[in-house]
Amino acid sequence: MVKSRLEAFSDGVIAIIITIMVLELKVPHGESLDALEPLIPVFLSYVLSFVYVGIYWNNHHHMLHAVRNVTGAILWANLHLLFWLSLFPFATGWMGENHFAAAPSALYGFVLLMAAIAYWVLQQLVIAAQGPDSLLKKAVGNDCKGKASPFFYLAAIAAAFWWQWISQCLYVLVALLWLVPDRRIERVLTGEES
Amino acid sequence: MVKSRLEAFSDGVIAIIITIMVLELKVPHGESLDALEPLIPVFLSYVLSFVYVGIYWNNHHHMLHAVRNVTGAILWANLHLLFWLSLFPFATGWMGENHFAAAPSALYGFVLLMAAIAYWVLQQLVIAAQGPDSLLKKAVGNDCKGKASPFFYLAAIAAAFWWQWISQCLYVLVALLWLVPDRRIERVLTGEES
Amino acid sequence: MVKSRLEAFSDGVIAIIITIMVLELKVPHGESLDALEPLIPVFLSYVLSFVYVGIYWNNHHHMLHAVRNVTGAILWANLHLLFWLSLFPFATGWMGENHFAAAPSALYGFVLLMAAIAYWVLQQLVIAAQGPDSLLKKAVGNDCKGKASPFFYLAAIAAAFWWQWISQCLYVLVALLWLVPDRRIERVLTGEES
Amino acid sequence: MVKSRLEAFSDGVIAIIITIMVLELKVPHGESLDALEPLIPVFLSYVLSFVYVGIYWNNHHHMLHAVRNVTGAILWANLHLLFWLSLFPFATGWMGENHFAAAPSALYGFVLLMAAIAYWVLQQLVIAAQGPDSLLKKAVGNDCKGKASPFFYLAAIAAAFWWQWISQCLYVLVALLWLVPDRRIERVLTGEES
Repeated sequence: MVKSRLEAFSDGVIAIIITIMVLELKVPHGESLDALEPLIPVFLSYVLSFVYVGIYWNNHHHMLHAVRNVTGAILWANLHLLFWLSLFPFATGWMGENHFAAAPSALYGFVLLMAAIAYWVLQQLVIAAQGPDSLLKKAVGNDCKGKASPFFYLAAIAAAFWWQWISQCLYVLVALLWLVPDRRIERVLTGEES
Repeated sequence: MVKSRLEAFSDGVIAIIITIMVLELKVPHGESLDALEPLIPVFLSYVLSFVYVGIYWNNHHHMLHAVRNVTGAILWANLHLLFWLSLFPFATGWMGENHFAAAPSALYGFVLLMAAIAYWVLQQLVIAAQGPDSLLKKAVGNDCKGKASPFFYLAAIAAAFWWQWISQCLYVLVALLWLVPDRRIERVLTGEES
Repeated sequence: MVKSRLEAFSDGVIAIIITIMVLELKVPHGESLDALEPLIPVFLSYVLSFVYVGIYWNNHHHMLHAVRNVTGAILWANLHLLFWLSLFPFATGWMGENHFAAAPSALYGFVLLMAAIAYWVLQQLVIAAQGPDSLLKKAVGNDCKGKASPFFYLAAIAAAFWWQWISQCLYVLVALLWLVPDRRIERVLTGEES
Repeated sequence: MVKSRLEAFSDGVIAIIITIMVLELKVPHGESLDALEPLIPVFLSYVLSFVYVGIYWNNHHHMLHAVRNVTGAILWANLHLLFWLSLFPFATGWMGENHFAAAPSALYGFVLLMAAIAYWVLQQLVIAAQGPDSLLKKAVGNDCKGKASPFFYLAAIAAAFWWQWISQCLYVLVALLWLVPDRRIERVLTGEES
């Protein structure tokens, strides 16, 4: 009961975040195709963030699948994650409108970093709530991707002030790493059920 | 479990898309009925897009009804479809504000085309996941409408640069074709259950 | 299955409509309480529309409770109702910003009228789908309120061009009539189940 | 059935409220970090409101968990609560943009006060619907926090006109008081079930 409402609320918030990001793509005033040109960076940053939010929804959904009982701490850790995700439209819009300039690119990385930390905290709490033979712990394994991502974000934040394009490449790279769906959890859970 | 969350998330995103499109209908400043006149094309394009998003919701809902197991590929194909649907408010607003001018009408057709392709990809993945005697494959049959629509959109995109009104007529025509609810899937599924 | 997704989608759209109406209450620039004064009519029209959307959600929820099988016609009649409800934020904002002037008040009544008609059509389709001894038909009875409301709206539209305040009073009156929750359906359904 | 739709609708509205608050964080035009400086108070008030809405969602969710049958009065008391919560984005935006000035801070407290009263009314109706040995009544106990909060809000409203920062401290203080999740209801319900 409690878990299904947690899922429904998270789905609602993530669905709204992913959709209001598109509102930063403001309808241009001209009627020629040229009027779309200044929107290209805004569009590209929208695509990047859409993929990131999609990845979070995907993994969040696998993680909650493994939850048995929802504690108060899990509820708040989940809200904490949603808080950082809710800043994606702002960070995306600022980066897009300023054509991937230094400060906006660094802020974008900072929001990604905080969301990754919030996700990690939530994951630890779910594992703790499951006790010593936690299914999620087994599923996550040594969690290479989860541990490496924050370092990539930190590198991207630093790079933003010298070579902006390197930080953009890092953001795309991490997204591609995660785009491979998190089969580990799927596999362990399926194994358990069969 | 997984399927119901996929449905809930898609419903959420589609519900938000269909509702934020209305935000392009900006409240006019005058208080006379004349103040509504410049909004007529915006309103008409809103109606058209509302019907299209309604058709997508309807068919998406029938398609997912036929899904048994959700794979990672289906999750991402679904997000890909939602991505193109999320560009409807932008394309609708641009076309409405520019009174169905050439470039905006063509872009609208392009977004419709990409959404149709994304829908087709999702459909193929669902059929593949169902194996050789796929229920959905039987239900879809030779899929005339699905195969013809992209060609209508391509024709409408080309027409937009010469006779804008032909492309509008094509958009309305395709919407009318699809408005007939997809009874095939309903029929096959009902047959299977009884 | 089909019914629960219809409910979920309608709930999503109605929840968004009721919430984006508040976006018409634009944050004022001054920091004194006087800055709120011009917002009073916008606020009052927001309250009125919030109550109307709340009434629709309430009754929609009782009506769908009585639905057994969802037909394609019911899906589209439901989308038709949601279409008119989606125009509430626009009509509310225009009426509020123009301090209940003639044309905006009439348009507000027109949107209310169309939503009432759309609701009635949906109700007829649900009754038809239930067959001769329809539960909803019994529950709705002679449907005084449903039949009287359109006439009140028509009167209010006409009055808007002569005495605006009469039309506002009529809108409030109809809302009060409906605020009494629709116990009939509740009663008949409870009777049936026990 | 009725209860799950009440939860779904409330979750939808609360999810939208918590997310559209972030729209007040308007993307700045400059591309340097300095451009973010004027947004700091807007951001801080967003954090405060996010926590408040999170608290309401959390407690609402525990309260509805205890509901057995949904009456018409409960439906409307719930909509009444959602109405006041829907004014959070407005009050938050006004307070943030005016750097916690007197009138906006007082209005923020007023909205918090009205939401607290609406929550209390809903709680009383749920208890009444549960009859003499209400589970929720036992769970809520003497309800210190619920009874004290309105007085803190009243004090904060008064303080806003003399020492604004005291009223901000009071808002933070009450939020911290409630951040401790409402274990009472959890405990009583778990006890009942075991």
